[in-house]
Amino acid sequence: MKKRLFTPGPTPVPETVMLRMAEPIIHHRNPEFAEVMKRVNRNLKYVFQTEQPVLTLTCSGTGGVESTFVSLFSPGDAIISVNGGKFGERWVKMPQAFGLNVVEVKVPWGTALQPGQLLDVLKKNPGVKAVYLVHSETSTGTATDVKEMAKLIHANSNALVCVDGITAVGAHEMRFDAWGIDVCVTGSQKGLMIPPGLAFVALSPRAIDMMQISRLPRFYFDLRKALKSYEKDDTPWTPAISLIVGVDAALEMIRAEGIENVWKRHERLARALRAGVTAVGLKLFSNSPSFAVTPVWLPEGVEWKAFNKTLKLDNGITIAGGQDEYAGKIFRVSHLGYYDDLDMVTVMAALERTLATQNHRFAPGSGVTAVQSVLLGRG
Amino acid sequence: MKKRLFTPGPTPVPETVMLRMAEPIIHHRNPEFAEVMKRVNRNLKYVFQTEQPVLTLTCSGTGGVESTFVSLFSPGDAIISVNGGKFGERWVKMPQAFGLNVVEVKVPWGTALQPGQLLDVLKKNPGVKAVYLVHSETSTGTATDVKEMAKLIHANSNALVCVDGITAVGAHEMRFDAWGIDVCVTGSQKGLMIPPGLAFVALSPRAIDMMQISRLPRFYFDLRKALKSYEKDDTPWTPAISLIVGVDAALEMIRAEGIENVWKRHERLARALRAGVTAVGLKLFSNSPSFAVTPVWLPEGVEWKAFNKTLKLDNGITIAGGQDEYAGKIFRVSHLGYYDDLDMVTVMAALERTLATQNHRFAPGSGVTAVQSVLLGRG
Repeated sequence: MKKRLFTPGPTPVPETVMLRMAEPIIHHRNPEFAEVMKRVNRNLKYVFQTEQPVLTLTCSGTGGVESTFVSLFSPGDAIISVNGGKFGERWVKMPQAFGLNVVEVKVPWGTALQPGQLLDVLKKNPGVKAVYLVHSETSTGTATDVKEMAKLIHANSNALVCVDGITAVGAHEMRFDAWGIDVCVTGSQKGLMIPPGLAFVALSPRAIDMMQISRLPRFYFDLRKALKSYEKDDTPWTPAISLIVGVDAALEMIRAEGIENVWKRHERLARALRAGVTAVGLKLFSNSPSFAVTPVWLPEGVEWKAFNKTLKLDNGITIAGGQDEYAGKIFRVSHLGYYDDLDMVTVMAALERTLATQNHRFAPGSGVTAVQSVLLGRG
Repeated sequence: MKKRLFTPGPTPVPETVMLRMAEPIIHHRNPEFAEVMKRVNRNLKYVFQTEQPVLTLTCSGTGGVESTFVSLFSPGDAIISVNGGKFGERWVKMPQAFGLNVVEVKVPWGTALQPGQLLDVLKKNPGVKAVYLVHSETSTGTATDVKEMAKLIHANSNALVCVDGITAVGAHEMRFDAWGIDVCVTGSQKGLMIPPGLAFVALSPRAIDMMQISRLPRFYFDLRKALKSYEKDDTPWTPAISLIVGVDAALEMIRAEGIENVWKRHERLARALRAGVTAVGLKLFSNSPSFAVTPVWLPEGVEWKAFNKTLKLDNGITIAGGQDEYAGKIFRVSHLGYYDDLDMVTVMAALERTLATQNHRFAPGSGVTAVQSVLLGRG
């Protein structure tokens, strides 16, 4: 059966990128690799909309975020971390493991952080060194208004604005320089359309200054070392060469499409799918849905296991379920990365076919019609 | 021009493995990935000759070694680290960065650690928690007798025997259980024949016990988390899926050949190449040459830059130069991983063709004849 992946990481890898990665491996200390790295570095700046360095690390997105904690802070430093899902929760536990003093801002799953809530916390904790925000919380499919929050943070504190952009970069507008972001991390298997194994970290001059005084122990994830190598289009340790060759090809695709068009495409696909699932009588889980992944309540009477099994075994479609207390209660369909309009019609058609077997009552075709209407600009 | 890589990492990736990695990506939380992981875990045990867990991490070999320092020790713990080259040096600096008390054993580049030297240090430092050894020091092409040293360490201390097996596993005999090794790390782009991006860490029960009392801060590299996931054929963070699919294919090749045969092949290729370079009047750099990489003094009057340029541009062959004070003085030819007998004839022929242009006097054909003699069992 033809298989289609609609998960928020890994995301589908374009065939041309897969074939580039299958080419004979090149050595990372040779001029031909430096050429690749130079192009990757330039195109990453474009994707993050920054003139600042964007460092490439060999690790998952989690490793990328860890590199920012261990490279920028010292034991006992206070930071604010916003927790609205599984990843926000991780960015509370991780800095605690390194001895940071973490002020946790809890946001109910599926709801967006409100400016007032953040302002209160900032006023109560005037000495914090940084605020960590999740741009698109993958576990709940919820987006945070990073532009707005960055403005608020800068107006009310000296804290660095640090963004987990792991499922946001390439899906949501990100203007690192214009918005005054200090740290933004993404992973390779998300909007950048290649397999997992690389993380990318953009750093402002203020963040780079912090690295010089940070006293947390570090070696592999020392961004000072990564920055020094970056300046020579190199990496401090042997990088995941084939993945870097892959991201080179993927970034060229993004540049050819244009980053604004990539953002618009993600917004259009998200709006289309939301219209589709709503049209067949399902409810959206989030009050601020992400453009990367659409979270949906399972309708009453439909069991996740049977639903997922039919979707997967009879339709070849892999999506994601809910996590923690929402396991079995919601499902998540991703449209992050290498997806186009017709993919949304496809996944909606498969959802309809699956719902029809699960005793969910709806007018067949109403979902794909609604998707199609939005895509044609009539939604 | 046809290009051939003879570097000690990355090493050539078999075509079948490249094509496996180019297949559509699968999701790491799905049963089909658990099947891959289960097979990889079983075959890694075979390669390390152990019944103990061998954990798979997404990072370079350096990250793999870091995971052992931060997961096993506490600030102020004393360890012995043997430094006979660039990598030994790194395993002195890295634990120092994490606040360990490192007793450095310096060994001249190109010479092997002697049992007497290690015994002296062990007696002078009775409380050390571990001894770190480099099985095959890539920078100098020098092998350490890990079996002998492990015996000596166990007879004279309670220290864990920790082995950097990054360019040794798959080239040199490694019997993790029979030799009483406690920690052994390797990387993916070496004897395991896939691109860089994964590290593998074998742990003895004693090492696993140490993880429970270690107090160094850690998160991404926390081997307790990796071990817990390993038991479910899973990983704690998103792994480099395509590389794991690749190593699955590569490990099946190693199993089909038989690990003892893989070791014998590496020894045969190393002996053949040593005979070849000696026959054309060159001298070996190491008194204990590795089976992974052969280090050779550049003959008098031959400049590294011109030599390397001819080898590369006229013959399509990439090798490695010397590092630090041996830059421009030695060259290193790798035969680690996916190489066979005929590859040694090929690289020796290219070395002859290159030396002939560099005013080095030797009898043309004497190198390839010597290589061929050893390969045919007459050397």
